[in-house]
Amino acid sequence: MNLPLGFRYSATFAGIRKIVKDDLALIVSDTRATAAAVFTQNRVVAGPVEIARKNVRAARGRMRGILVNAGNANCATKTSEKVAIETSRAAARMIGAKAEDVLPASTGVIGVELDARLIIDALPALVAGLSADRFEDAARAILTTDLVMKTAFAEVKGARIAGMTKGSGMIHPRMATTLAFVMTDAVMAPDALRTALKRACGKTFNRISVDGDTSTNDTLAVLANGASGVRPRVTAFEAALTEVLESLARQIVKDGEGAKKLVTIDVEGATSERAAEKIARCIANSPLVKTAIAGSDPNWGRILSAAGNAGIAFDPRRVDIDFQGVAVCRGGLAADFSEDELKRKLDAAECSVRFVIKGRERGRARFWTCDFTEEYIKINASYRT
Amino acid sequence: MNLPLGFRYSATFAGIRKIVKDDLALIVSDTRATAAAVFTQNRVVAGPVEIARKNVRAARGRMRGILVNAGNANCATKTSEKVAIETSRAAARMIGAKAEDVLPASTGVIGVELDARLIIDALPALVAGLSADRFEDAARAILTTDLVMKTAFAEVKGARIAGMTKGSGMIHPRMATTLAFVMTDAVMAPDALRTALKRACGKTFNRISVDGDTSTNDTLAVLANGASGVRPRVTAFEAALTEVLESLARQIVKDGEGAKKLVTIDVEGATSERAAEKIARCIANSPLVKTAIAGSDPNWGRILSAAGNAGIAFDPRRVDIDFQGVAVCRGGLAADFSEDELKRKLDAAECSVRFVIKGRERGRARFWTCDFTEEYIKINASYRT
Repeated sequence: MNLPLGFRYSATFAGIRKIVKDDLALIVSDTRATAAAVFTQNRVVAGPVEIARKNVRAARGRMRGILVNAGNANCATKTSEKVAIETSRAAARMIGAKAEDVLPASTGVIGVELDARLIIDALPALVAGLSADRFEDAARAILTTDLVMKTAFAEVKGARIAGMTKGSGMIHPRMATTLAFVMTDAVMAPDALRTALKRACGKTFNRISVDGDTSTNDTLAVLANGASGVRPRVTAFEAALTEVLESLARQIVKDGEGAKKLVTIDVEGATSERAAEKIARCIANSPLVKTAIAGSDPNWGRILSAAGNAGIAFDPRRVDIDFQGVAVCRGGLAADFSEDELKRKLDAAECSVRFVIKGRERGRARFWTCDFTEEYIKINASYRT
Repeated sequence: MNLPLGFRYSATFAGIRKIVKDDLALIVSDTRATAAAVFTQNRVVAGPVEIARKNVRAARGRMRGILVNAGNANCATKTSEKVAIETSRAAARMIGAKAEDVLPASTGVIGVELDARLIIDALPALVAGLSADRFEDAARAILTTDLVMKTAFAEVKGARIAGMTKGSGMIHPRMATTLAFVMTDAVMAPDALRTALKRACGKTFNRISVDGDTSTNDTLAVLANGASGVRPRVTAFEAALTEVLESLARQIVKDGEGAKKLVTIDVEGATSERAAEKIARCIANSPLVKTAIAGSDPNWGRILSAAGNAGIAFDPRRVDIDFQGVAVCRGGLAADFSEDELKRKLDAAECSVRFVIKGRERGRARFWTCDFTEEYIKINASYRT
């Protein structure tokens, strides 16, 4: 783990969660950093997302830090925006930044008033605790139903990238999903950072699904403070950022609520990448496919049927399907395979599905999902109470 | 139960299912009946659906009967269409009808060859068993993972309507869903019957969801043989048909795989009926909403968030939400309600969700779904094997 220069992190328990566990984190760049962010596409948007969007715009792509709490989404409450403004401003003041230089983010239950006092009272301790080596403390403080901490790292020409994320339910990205924060000491111009983020996000965070629900609070932000002095090419930076985001996105799916298996879905031979993505998304979201995989059942009929629901025209007689590299369907018909052997292979922690439309088209997309288990129901039938 | 005149029914065990239970049914009208049908919108379509579509067209809206099997969907196999043609023709011959006068339908597992011989060999017994009072035998023979038989009846000006349906998984209609057959002795012209079916289906079978998956075999067919001599007004017939289809559709959801609760979702105040339906569909398909209801958790934040994913613009601050008639959200904010009392009310077998956007718009839609339980996972993790 090689952390980018010029960032400090802190975490503390502010009393927002019901249990005593850090629920407030602060990430600060020593200097103003180039900032880019993507947000949920849900029409119902939490106050902190509204304010974060405004701040990124007002700060003209240069910010100092991120203030994030878990345990309460600060959404669908009377004071949602007010709390986001007051707390991010208070944090900005304490680190000597302008009001709009701190990006607020929240995750947790919807519809319960978040008391700004809890956060404001915790700020002195939070700021006092800022340290270059507390990256993991911050990464742990943002978790909710997650079972494990999620971080990823990369280097590009000597500049460092470090990312953290959280999430294991209400995961179905449109633009971004859940909370993810990426820090880098590369030198990046605002436009280039924005472009790299959108493109990297499109192939990673936009291609995962746990339960098909998009949250009201999804925020993915990148801060590039240039502290390394390294100015990588945009394509090289984008590749390294994609590596970090893909790792984080896969970690989310792997830790999907109740999930026992990470499933990688490859669709090939569609008329375009967009068409391939649509088919992959339909397969990834089908409860029938996800439960079959939970049961290690190579039920390719459900894959074919789910693909048929994507609204994309294809000839089923040209479809080949593989599970774990084993041919189960050829030309839309059952292939000859050993059911028992394949069932054993599907007991693995990582499963692959390959869906190929034979012909001259080259549209392809990779998507990640998880299996659907009884545990998911248990977790979600009683999350709030 | 008042059956329409001029129809006979039969059912037998042809050896298609793994267990000994009737798996083949025949419905015959004594005279050619006006016929209308709607089919799945999945791009992957079973052979019997292709042939049924062709037959309805070739018969110019007048048919004699329906041949239906359970235990095998006759889909994604080498002989799918051939089997549908051979078996429906053989049945037509035996009842003295033209080849295209019998509509084939199948339900069950996908991708396993269906042996036409099994059906053809069973036909003599099936035809010999035809009787006006074996409606329920046929209704039972078409069931798969269903726990209960599903039938519904209505009268219009002295003419009778009787419907049967099956289905409890892979339920998410676009046009029609699952298998449903409706017989009536009303006198109906082909165009009028088609229009009445489409409109009635749009408000009933198109508004239910169990798991968001649309099957490859969905078929909803109506036969009107005119045996009563009653020629009802089209609007009156449509109302009675809607009553039958709504009852059948609700029975499907109530018997949804693993479902303990039938949930009725009313959306009001959207810009159009279509917009209201989109919002209702998103709420109905959200695993987070469905698991919350399984846990009797009045988690209105999930309702609001699911509605926000419909791609329909609305102001969350104008949203009111009720569970079981109890106000839980007013103007997008938590209302004051007794959590314990409401939890008890949500333990009922039927739950209601009302989602109202306040203002001048009048678009409304009703939708039915079920709760999402551990039992659903159990059933679907091992359906095929």
